[in-house]
Amino acid sequence: MPVILVTNDDGVGSFGIRTLAKALRSLGDVYVVAPEREQSAVGHALTLHRPLKFANLNKKVYFINGTPTDCVILGVNRLLPQKPDIIVSGINHGGNMGDDITYSGTVAAAIEGTFLGIPSIAISLVTEPRNNKKKYSGFQEAARFAQRLVSMVLKEGLPPDTLLNVNVPDIFKVKGMRLTRQGKRAYDNSIQEMSDPRGRKHYWIGGGTPLWHRGEDTDFEAIQEGFISVTPIHLDLTNYKALEYMRKKWKI
Amino acid sequence: MPVILVTNDDGVGSFGIRTLAKALRSLGDVYVVAPEREQSAVGHALTLHRPLKFANLNKKVYFINGTPTDCVILGVNRLLPQKPDIIVSGINHGGNMGDDITYSGTVAAAIEGTFLGIPSIAISLVTEPRNNKKKYSGFQEAARFAQRLVSMVLKEGLPPDTLLNVNVPDIFKVKGMRLTRQGKRAYDNSIQEMSDPRGRKHYWIGGGTPLWHRGEDTDFEAIQEGFISVTPIHLDLTNYKALEYMRKKWKI
Repeated sequence: MPVILVTNDDGVGSFGIRTLAKALRSLGDVYVVAPEREQSAVGHALTLHRPLKFANLNKKVYFINGTPTDCVILGVNRLLPQKPDIIVSGINHGGNMGDDITYSGTVAAAIEGTFLGIPSIAISLVTEPRNNKKKYSGFQEAARFAQRLVSMVLKEGLPPDTLLNVNVPDIFKVKGMRLTRQGKRAYDNSIQEMSDPRGRKHYWIGGGTPLWHRGEDTDFEAIQEGFISVTPIHLDLTNYKALEYMRKKWKI
Repeated sequence: MPVILVTNDDGVGSFGIRTLAKALRSLGDVYVVAPEREQSAVGHALTLHRPLKFANLNKKVYFINGTPTDCVILGVNRLLPQKPDIIVSGINHGGNMGDDITYSGTVAAAIEGTFLGIPSIAISLVTEPRNNKKKYSGFQEAARFAQRLVSMVLKEGLPPDTLLNVNVPDIFKVKGMRLTRQGKRAYDNSIQEMSDPRGRKHYWIGGGTPLWHRGEDTDFEAIQEGFISVTPIHLDLTNYKALEYMRKKWKI
């Protein structure tokens, strides 16, 4: 029976990860290793400056005082009885598309899994961040898709150094699946200025309206048109075209 | 006179950022916006859950209770008198090569700058992390190179959505500069198990010996052979070859 490691960045108690783990139990031996609390926007962070501790909810569900990346490292190297056959990170409450994936703890866990040579999938439900998490049907839909995808990846494997980044629209009737490329976001990292009780200014990041560069074949487009988006992501960030150009033109 | 934003992840007081800022003052109006303390291995993290505050060391040197990414956002959107013409992040104490760049706060700052449409450079000195920072000549060498590179980028610009990731070897006689691709690291995220005073186990990530897949033209190779490495990094992580393959072969 394949060993499946499930993690996320919303924390071990979140509805998304419980729905995902439950759906995958029909396919293998599922272990959950997740942060004890929400870790959104931590990016690919490692905890190097303080010790990590874990605790069990039961024999196969662990939580850690760290990031999703920490969970993968500790899970694979210490907590699981063997190297997992696949890692699935999610189901994140909120999309991880376009440039946003570089901020995403959900995707970072899949990146770490890929570094360790384990086929890895990140899966997110594209829903309002401020939605009160009462609409659970989207998570069920996403979990059903994860089940099919994991089953296929366990059979077929993934291209080397490549993970799958999956986004599922939170709509009543999903139209199907599309293989997509990573879209681009016109960033508005707006800042809210506030004053503390002593009148000292402080700042909050966020709250701006995301603007997407609509582009053919992108993750954004698939979601907007009602499809599940599956993007193959690799970890070589070299811009080879620029490299070629610079080699010809640069004098330095 | 061009406006230059300097940041890092080692903190505002580090020798690397002070050396860098000093070297760049001959080229433009330099503003430093940096974390108040070390932020290594934070990845591309955003601070969303608590307010950010800043303070000044002087009119053009700010420090923030946040990550390098926070510094870029707050610097560009609030603290600088205008949008900077270039962002330079570093000089990091320790290399940022191969897969490691996804963990790097130094590189994350340059990624954020690139999202904001500003030419951005990350620069790191490849030196022992445990070295006691007493050998400062490497930082001077790196700062001199940064000066030349910034001067060129201010004139020529950079390809769209592309940043430069620079690593400088910490050796007596640097042989020159090479344009490189991102190397690959065979990961050993080893874990140290320890016991706390009450006998409870805890874990520290790190301490393993990094193994590099030596590869032609990589950042690692350039450094090992005594050259400065300059890698053009882009932010579209789509694996287009895998995408093409999956479109032909996948049945799901």
